[in-house]
Amino acid sequence: MNAEIIAVGTELLLGDIVNTNAQYLSQELALLGINVYRHTVIGDNLERLQAALGEAYSRCDLVITTGGLGPTADDITKDAVAAYFGLQMRLDEPSLEQIASFFTRIGSEMTENNRRQAIIPEGALILDNPVGTAPGCTVEANGKICILLPGPPREMIRMFNSHVTSYLHKFSNDILVSRVLRLVGIGESAMEAQIADILAAQTNPTVAPYALGRPGEVVLRISAKAADESAAKALIKPVANALYERLGDYIYGEDDDSLPAVVVAALKRRGMTVATAESITGGMLSAAIVSVSGASQVFNEGYVTYSNDAKIRQLGVSPDTLAKYGAVSEQVAMDMAAGAAKAAGADIAISTTGIAGPDGGSAEKPVGLTYIGLCYNGKLSAKKFILFGGRNRIRDRAVAHALDMLRREVSADGK
Amino acid sequence: MNAEIIAVGTELLLGDIVNTNAQYLSQELALLGINVYRHTVIGDNLERLQAALGEAYSRCDLVITTGGLGPTADDITKDAVAAYFGLQMRLDEPSLEQIASFFTRIGSEMTENNRRQAIIPEGALILDNPVGTAPGCTVEANGKICILLPGPPREMIRMFNSHVTSYLHKFSNDILVSRVLRLVGIGESAMEAQIADILAAQTNPTVAPYALGRPGEVVLRISAKAADESAAKALIKPVANALYERLGDYIYGEDDDSLPAVVVAALKRRGMTVATAESITGGMLSAAIVSVSGASQVFNEGYVTYSNDAKIRQLGVSPDTLAKYGAVSEQVAMDMAAGAAKAAGADIAISTTGIAGPDGGSAEKPVGLTYIGLCYNGKLSAKKFILFGGRNRIRDRAVAHALDMLRREVSADGK
Repeated sequence: MNAEIIAVGTELLLGDIVNTNAQYLSQELALLGINVYRHTVIGDNLERLQAALGEAYSRCDLVITTGGLGPTADDITKDAVAAYFGLQMRLDEPSLEQIASFFTRIGSEMTENNRRQAIIPEGALILDNPVGTAPGCTVEANGKICILLPGPPREMIRMFNSHVTSYLHKFSNDILVSRVLRLVGIGESAMEAQIADILAAQTNPTVAPYALGRPGEVVLRISAKAADESAAKALIKPVANALYERLGDYIYGEDDDSLPAVVVAALKRRGMTVATAESITGGMLSAAIVSVSGASQVFNEGYVTYSNDAKIRQLGVSPDTLAKYGAVSEQVAMDMAAGAAKAAGADIAISTTGIAGPDGGSAEKPVGLTYIGLCYNGKLSAKKFILFGGRNRIRDRAVAHALDMLRREVSADGK
Repeated sequence: MNAEIIAVGTELLLGDIVNTNAQYLSQELALLGINVYRHTVIGDNLERLQAALGEAYSRCDLVITTGGLGPTADDITKDAVAAYFGLQMRLDEPSLEQIASFFTRIGSEMTENNRRQAIIPEGALILDNPVGTAPGCTVEANGKICILLPGPPREMIRMFNSHVTSYLHKFSNDILVSRVLRLVGIGESAMEAQIADILAAQTNPTVAPYALGRPGEVVLRISAKAADESAAKALIKPVANALYERLGDYIYGEDDDSLPAVVVAALKRRGMTVATAESITGGMLSAAIVSVSGASQVFNEGYVTYSNDAKIRQLGVSPDTLAKYGAVSEQVAMDMAAGAAKAAGADIAISTTGIAGPDGGSAEKPVGLTYIGLCYNGKLSAKKFILFGGRNRIRDRAVAHALDMLRREVSADGK
């Protein structure tokens, strides 16, 4: 089956945003064995979109649109698709109820605009949007298929994964199974250098670095095509094993695992609590831990000690140590962790101190210099990093390294 | 003048890379007053590219292509353009010499393939590539213009800036200027309902909601075309004023402003310090403040008090209040803020407590219920919100509302 992707949105034609949706969909369609012939970006214009649909269907049977499903008058994708297929628009009562209950839930009034979002081409199959108000839909007519997805990548990706993948499976004989390995503590080039032979050798399964990693991590995706799932998994297994042999030390999880979730799960398994003491990361590390549902079982409190005074008062860091070594030092990192463990009564505490820039660096202590301290059952350690990127990239990486240190400490001792 | 951008490369259709070139060119063309009608991505296929050129020229007079200028057999852009215009291909001696000297310079041997890169459509104007081997070119024929640029963004951008901008200036009279208004504390539909007449009435300048807001915010863009910058700004001004009149209370900044940066700047102006006391946001609020370079002037410390015990111990919240009203209550939000202000010795303190879900909600206290507390020179207040979205979206929105409350408090008193 051949497909084309049409993104709808004047903001794309003005260069305000980049069309990452087309990239994501192309990767996913390739995995499903569906060829993508063309990407098109079109403005919020009914006639032009209708014309683009006609052109696309002269070349292929499947079109996926992104964008133009919002509540405003310039959201015209559903109208254009209905016009192209000669379908009436009709109000979908269940969608309207869902939108209405969404607004009731948030204690806000539904406007007439939002009602528009429940009006869809007749005969369309609704695709629920669990993270926004705009439902998507699929239309099948005259042997052609159109799948309408919203523009915000977060909503589009969620809906593609929960509805569209299984819908498209029926058009493909082989199924494609993927296994994703998630690595932390190694860069993409270094990783590729270590497995260049494996990357080059594979055709089925294929192994490729995957663009959608979270900050500070690197992702490898192994994908196999086969008649059924177990056959695909059997193809994947020896390749995954070879990758674990080379890179196992860096692999923190697979598929939907996240580094904070892996850390929280490891702490839970061991019945341990963690406390955070943050300077450079300013709360990002505790926020990452708290992002995991159920984190309250392992995390009670954290300290954001940005000033020296706060480090002294909240964490009991010694003024002498601060004066002698400076706030960005191995010694202060360890003192911060020790102080946090003590104040919170936690089994393990982790600290961050560093220079995020753009100012504040020196020849001796450059921007990016970061120390992460650990206090584990009273035992202190610290690690030094030189991190790259802008202010926020440096802080993202500090969080990833801190979580990785926690992961290694807790799992090394506990497996 | 109207233009379309055609990117050539199978790697784009496989999702291996994202089409950032189209974004860059769109931004630049908008500034030159050239309308971009469409972006197209096409594989390395001569016939399909030739067809795409025909379609594009049926709609516009200028096509910019990116990619397909390399030395290999699947680099077919020049051939397709020559075929479309009915031009012969010829060897350009100066280009060949330049390619040869490039290889001499890098101490490498020129292959027969590289010779291909010096073969261009007859009559084309060569565009030097100072950072690679592939020259670009422009072709003018039958009242149509084609500009061929290489695919690597670094080369494309260099060549666009050094050759294409000045080339295109002669086709454009107008320039386009934009002004972006950033709002917080109001949803997109509610905003549009308030300014529906303004949105509908404008043609130059245009006013449109803009998808690229940060979590919890809404963005409006006003764009005007005029002969020069000051004329464009004069067109924008009355429309911006009208929007401020309707929505001024929600507008926290413009263009590249961010809500944390606006808050930090307001605090700096007043010489005030802020402290944070976070439960539901778990460090995200302090992280947002610290993301602003120079935040250390206004922020010394924060408290992440996830457990009741931490709220009592770190912030002095009364156990009786917790027992009577529950951790997610107006009273506890205010006590947390008061405790943080006192412990940190800060002029202003802000607190968050709520239920991020997915568990922990009840009929009385549903998922999304959030209180934000404020202590300002000893005066306490709190606000209740019902936030929606998943766990992380709820927390993002809590952060935006907390920053908005800080912004309103600090600027109301200080202007």
